[in-house]
Amino acid sequence: MSQKRIIVIGGSAAGPKAASRARRLDENAEITLIQKSADLSMASCGYPYYVGGFFDDRNQLLCSPAGVVRDSRFFWNAKKIETLVNTEVIGIDRVKKEVSYINLLTGEKNSALYDKLVLATGATPRKPPVPGIDLTGVTTLQSMQDADYLRKVRDEGIIKKAVIIGGGLIGIETTEALHLAGIEITMVEMLPQLLTFLDFQMAKLVEKYVQGKVNVILNNGVTEFKGENGVLKTVKLQDGTEIPCDLAVLAIGVQPNVKLAQSVGLEIGTTGGIKVNEYLQTSDSDIYAVGDCIEVPHLITGMHVHAPFGDLANLQGRIVGENLIVGNVTTFPGTIQTGICKVFDFGVGSTGLSEKNAQKAGLTNIATVVNASLDKPGFMQGKLLITKLIVERATHRILGAQVIGPGEVSKQLAIWAMAIQGKMTVEQMVNVDLPYAPPYSLAIDHSIATAHVMQNKLRGLFKGISAIELNELVTNDKSPYLLDVRNPDEFEQLRLGIGEVLLPLGQLRKRLTELPEDKNTEIVVWCKISLRGYEAALILQANGYKQVRVLEGGLMAWPFVTK
Amino acid sequence: MSQKRIIVIGGSAAGPKAASRARRLDENAEITLIQKSADLSMASCGYPYYVGGFFDDRNQLLCSPAGVVRDSRFFWNAKKIETLVNTEVIGIDRVKKEVSYINLLTGEKNSALYDKLVLATGATPRKPPVPGIDLTGVTTLQSMQDADYLRKVRDEGIIKKAVIIGGGLIGIETTEALHLAGIEITMVEMLPQLLTFLDFQMAKLVEKYVQGKVNVILNNGVTEFKGENGVLKTVKLQDGTEIPCDLAVLAIGVQPNVKLAQSVGLEIGTTGGIKVNEYLQTSDSDIYAVGDCIEVPHLITGMHVHAPFGDLANLQGRIVGENLIVGNVTTFPGTIQTGICKVFDFGVGSTGLSEKNAQKAGLTNIATVVNASLDKPGFMQGKLLITKLIVERATHRILGAQVIGPGEVSKQLAIWAMAIQGKMTVEQMVNVDLPYAPPYSLAIDHSIATAHVMQNKLRGLFKGISAIELNELVTNDKSPYLLDVRNPDEFEQLRLGIGEVLLPLGQLRKRLTELPEDKNTEIVVWCKISLRGYEAALILQANGYKQVRVLEGGLMAWPFVTK
Repeated sequence: MSQKRIIVIGGSAAGPKAASRARRLDENAEITLIQKSADLSMASCGYPYYVGGFFDDRNQLLCSPAGVVRDSRFFWNAKKIETLVNTEVIGIDRVKKEVSYINLLTGEKNSALYDKLVLATGATPRKPPVPGIDLTGVTTLQSMQDADYLRKVRDEGIIKKAVIIGGGLIGIETTEALHLAGIEITMVEMLPQLLTFLDFQMAKLVEKYVQGKVNVILNNGVTEFKGENGVLKTVKLQDGTEIPCDLAVLAIGVQPNVKLAQSVGLEIGTTGGIKVNEYLQTSDSDIYAVGDCIEVPHLITGMHVHAPFGDLANLQGRIVGENLIVGNVTTFPGTIQTGICKVFDFGVGSTGLSEKNAQKAGLTNIATVVNASLDKPGFMQGKLLITKLIVERATHRILGAQVIGPGEVSKQLAIWAMAIQGKMTVEQMVNVDLPYAPPYSLAIDHSIATAHVMQNKLRGLFKGISAIELNELVTNDKSPYLLDVRNPDEFEQLRLGIGEVLLPLGQLRKRLTELPEDKNTEIVVWCKISLRGYEAALILQANGYKQVRVLEGGLMAWPFVTK
Repeated sequence: MSQKRIIVIGGSAAGPKAASRARRLDENAEITLIQKSADLSMASCGYPYYVGGFFDDRNQLLCSPAGVVRDSRFFWNAKKIETLVNTEVIGIDRVKKEVSYINLLTGEKNSALYDKLVLATGATPRKPPVPGIDLTGVTTLQSMQDADYLRKVRDEGIIKKAVIIGGGLIGIETTEALHLAGIEITMVEMLPQLLTFLDFQMAKLVEKYVQGKVNVILNNGVTEFKGENGVLKTVKLQDGTEIPCDLAVLAIGVQPNVKLAQSVGLEIGTTGGIKVNEYLQTSDSDIYAVGDCIEVPHLITGMHVHAPFGDLANLQGRIVGENLIVGNVTTFPGTIQTGICKVFDFGVGSTGLSEKNAQKAGLTNIATVVNASLDKPGFMQGKLLITKLIVERATHRILGAQVIGPGEVSKQLAIWAMAIQGKMTVEQMVNVDLPYAPPYSLAIDHSIATAHVMQNKLRGLFKGISAIELNELVTNDKSPYLLDVRNPDEFEQLRLGIGEVLLPLGQLRKRLTELPEDKNTEIVVWCKISLRGYEAALILQANGYKQVRVLEGGLMAWPFVTK
């Protein structure tokens, strides 16, 4: 029997993973990896941290856990995988099952036959069609070359001002990196909020935090990059604002690289990614596709999404590596779009559906709650976590969670991601058995406490109002009676300052007469995180007040100005 | 309608939680909390960190998130709960539904009627029946008084040597606390391993780490505390060893406080804890019981266990608080005995069943694997994690996981705890969508990689051998052919030194002739974490070797001496 010939196009994450897994399952297959750029197996999610100076050795982005750079020699010696770098595939003959390619350095063309082909062509940063986009100083942070360029910017220390176009994940990570390089940053976002995977309130809380470090401009886009002698000097925005700068980084999202697939007639999905079945097979059964160039099903909505995450790329590579060798035996279930990013000292992330996306998907009968608490006890230097939880009202199934704050966000997201994938309900989450010790969590973990609040809300015990809604009422002169039930010293330090009365919880029962006589008065009550606020609301309700609501997450989840 | 009278006996964790939840659901109930000691709502899990100097203000153990000490005044003002401290319940009349109690300071006796009663009497440290147990200097770390005493020891700095009796969770935490106080510690454990919730190999790895900081003596127990003038001077062990010291802390486990329950005829379970139904109701339907004094079902085995964890106590309190008021509407599902402790810079924990406990429960058809990797990329200063995973062979259901190491142990345990409670299988875990970004995890999270190894093992692709088994073979002169496939510089730095040959993975294919000719030779292969070891094993198998196994977890999971 002749050896199976496998060609993998793309050498970043999913491609090498597919090739390596295939090798492990078949020592004799002929495996060739074709890579357009010079490097292989780049830890591209690590670029912002290289640029930001978290580490200095570029090779760390390229090396195996044992510290060996994953170059062509490594792939051959350790994995018997032939790699062609600086090589671009220029055609696929699906009938002859042949790939033709060109060496970008020498111009030499060649071709190779395959039994099975893998497309791991990745994605490319979107670029707005505006003048000046090719000026020196206008870049993205997508390739190793981009990373090298921006690291040089850091190391040289000449550039003092930069504009980041786009307030998404990469935009935020790049902002932190360049801020750490001592560069003054303006971040420009077209939409009314940063990080669109977050709902508005959560995004506003991140914005409030980030505003202290960089200048954030929302609802605005770039219309022109203006330069002198081919070098960027100014970024001009839609509203006419001109921002002098020496550097502009485009981070307005990526689009799947499907040109090659499209050119040979492979089916493209509705999101623009290559269409694959559950085995990650394209419309040609001898061609698989993985990573940022494909679309995958969303596990909750069933709809297809483009989910360009490094972890999914690796998982998909593993699956295809097996299917290449054994035939279609293993499937990729889909994604719940779990994502996280570091925003200076905040972790910020989301898993499952946001409220916005749930509504888009037609899931309208949902309940949400915002909860704030420490991640571990105060005496262990606990840090704040704020979670927005989204559940389906009919089934109480967990649909999504967003978590932000200086606390242990990553663990919280992992818990919720598991809850969603385990198809768990609020009722299961309220008594879940998680690891507890003071160095690691509160006795009632933040995730469980959030489930408690949600359960109370679903039962009608906890009647909440979001910061967004309260702010609207106040702004439109429809303010309810506002009650802060913290202690006077807390009130002195920080307060909403929207017309509230201070009446500490411990005195509330004795001073009920100070409240409005009309038991139908709308009252909104809060404390720091709204635990005392909740208790106060129950006392008021027990005393006949019919329209009492708790400000969800209290002061800590208030995304507007405080006093 | 007259107000419901609720009496709660016990004011540490579960009791106050039950009382507070009851108050939230019924503003008018008469709620009384009776507490034997002077303090209320002590964060008892925090004692070791107070003793160890993580913080200095004793009140931090007693205060609410807002910083107010939870004393009788607090409970009355904020929660309208009457608290009787320094008060011991001396009798319950179940017919009259009356509790009689005595003020331990004044000797005054009194009684009170209840409609519903809650027992939250906690647990007491076990004490061995050996001479000298009452000497000054022999203590436990269970009560606020114990914490005060040991903190004084720290602050005075007079005591230089201490013996900790018991290598369980509390023993280990106390060891760290006193070590941080500059005290030289000897830890004595009756069993052949520390931390019995861990399987042997995992416990040995912890022991190897701890031995560098304190002296650990296994397979030995205390037979006598010897003193002078009533003050401890020496701890004498079963094998005759005498250890001079000024302090001995007993930490050989706790037993549920059931005397009161027993004295009034409430049913006691097989584990010695108060028997309760799913509503946490005792054999008397007007008496509930919560926290460390009860036994609860294990969610996997269905058997009852004594699970004295602070987080479960709180969850149980919340449930009973509701059932007291609304009637039996909410249930406690049970525990998977998720636990974690900080051991200096290691996190150490377990969730679900250990291999040992699975076997005890009659689950013999199980598969286990030990896996080691970093928690995040090396360039982000990733730290080591070692996981032992236990699954049911027939269903591939996750049964348990133990995780140790300087890495993010708590998050890993939370992930596995959720997997178990979501009844997830290995196949679900291999493609699970978790939050990934370099500051937080590897592209393939350690938990997922562990599931990958397990899947490979279940399919027969990965044939593993545990460190324990290999060590036995080597010790008994039945050593297989031993192959380390790392690089020469790694080998120079650290190696098992049990007769292995070095043959780097990258050269293996070219140097196969150096291996034993007989293809039936038993071979064990490894690297640092056994990823390269796995690849090497596959190469050997593809070249005809029939008996190749991979040392699970590689050098990193080797609990014996290295060279």
